[in-house]
Amino acid sequence: MGWLHAGHRALIGRARAENATTVVSIFVNPRQFGDPADLERYPRNEARDVAICAEEGADLVFAPSVDEVYPPGHDTSVRVGAVSAPLEGAARPGHFDGVATVVAILFNLVGADRAYFGQKDAQQLLVIRRMAADLAIPIEVVAHPTVREPDGLAMSSRNVHLSPAERAAASVVRRALLVAREAWSTGERSADALRATMRAELSHEPLAEPDYVSVADATTLEELTTLDGSALLSMAVRFGSTRLIDNEPLP
Amino acid sequence: MGWLHAGHRALIGRARAENATTVVSIFVNPRQFGDPADLERYPRNEARDVAICAEEGADLVFAPSVDEVYPPGHDTSVRVGAVSAPLEGAARPGHFDGVATVVAILFNLVGADRAYFGQKDAQQLLVIRRMAADLAIPIEVVAHPTVREPDGLAMSSRNVHLSPAERAAASVVRRALLVAREAWSTGERSADALRATMRAELSHEPLAEPDYVSVADATTLEELTTLDGSALLSMAVRFGSTRLIDNEPLP
Repeated sequence: MGWLHAGHRALIGRARAENATTVVSIFVNPRQFGDPADLERYPRNEARDVAICAEEGADLVFAPSVDEVYPPGHDTSVRVGAVSAPLEGAARPGHFDGVATVVAILFNLVGADRAYFGQKDAQQLLVIRRMAADLAIPIEVVAHPTVREPDGLAMSSRNVHLSPAERAAASVVRRALLVAREAWSTGERSADALRATMRAELSHEPLAEPDYVSVADATTLEELTTLDGSALLSMAVRFGSTRLIDNEPLP
Repeated sequence: MGWLHAGHRALIGRARAENATTVVSIFVNPRQFGDPADLERYPRNEARDVAICAEEGADLVFAPSVDEVYPPGHDTSVRVGAVSAPLEGAARPGHFDGVATVVAILFNLVGADRAYFGQKDAQQLLVIRRMAADLAIPIEVVAHPTVREPDGLAMSSRNVHLSPAERAAASVVRRALLVAREAWSTGERSADALRATMRAELSHEPLAEPDYVSVADATTLEELTTLDGSALLSMAVRFGSTRLIDNEPLP
């Protein structure tokens, strides 16, 4: 979606290391924004993005117009079921239908052998893996670890909207995930206890307004009672008008 | 969907004439049957179908199991909008979601350059063209004229279910379309008049129970009031427990 940051740079670097040719798609997809104001304020700067792609050695930038991706009369949507429903799907109705549809189109337009996505959008990754496998699109979906600022804040194009105070406060998201991970690594297996740990940490930061705090099955994203396999800690937290998400997988 | 007839033979012949390699997919798709009894009674004979493909010179038969097309956990659907809604879409809720989904999967699994479909399923053709274009699947969808029995009955795998009396009666479908076409060619431009012409012809056959009789825009399938461009005459008619469809495009 453009407004490239160090996370995207890492994806380009990984793609270059593992493939003969690297294409970067840049497309702010109107169909995955429920709120027109959110679409309107999404940061864009194609010239800057193209310069970053050149710096990182990408071979090609694919930056289609909205009409190229959705020609007049376009009337098809792709929907992924259960894994789209909770968390971001519940908070943003229609969001993942828009994601699944545009990614199917981009996969087919680009014809890539592999596609690289950041782990920060963990649910998006699950939705895209499910879609590509279920529609038999011949592409390998590769997850790359979240790239972070020195204080732990996950790289996101939305970070640009944070005021200096909100930016300082936003590091609590990563801290909350890490205290829960620490509790887990010392033996805590109650999902409610881990959720309470994350909420307690967030409550120390007055600017943080939690949207959801989740301890879910890492594959289905169903909320857990007891952790007895791999799990995903995740949360969405508002800082003023900016909503940030982050997550921590537990093996 | 198998139970190959002369219409399929014509598709194979055309595909062979226009391409280096011809693949025939045979898959009775459970997701496009709303009624489990209809799925159950759909005729199947893979050995006979494979022999017909060999006779016609197909290079490869792709006859996957249900689990190959929909592996466990499959949870993605493709939906085409407005053109899916009327006629067969209204009569068979969910039918075209099942068609669009399975055809997207088959297109991706087979990787064909062109795909051949019979004009008999005119709405299906429109749905598949829309889906393939909208998802940017790199395939050309080719329509082939309906192949008919000597009395005009359109070839269909479902014809096998007709009793001898129903089989004799079923030729009324083609006659009804042709009397409407004749009225059109002599200047009739009222859609209601054409619908009445078709219904009057069907009413002469006691075994024919019309489901719908349509005069619609050839691209959008919206019902017309006045014909001032290309149109599609179409109908669905029951003969006992067998439901047949047919159509006649007007240029």
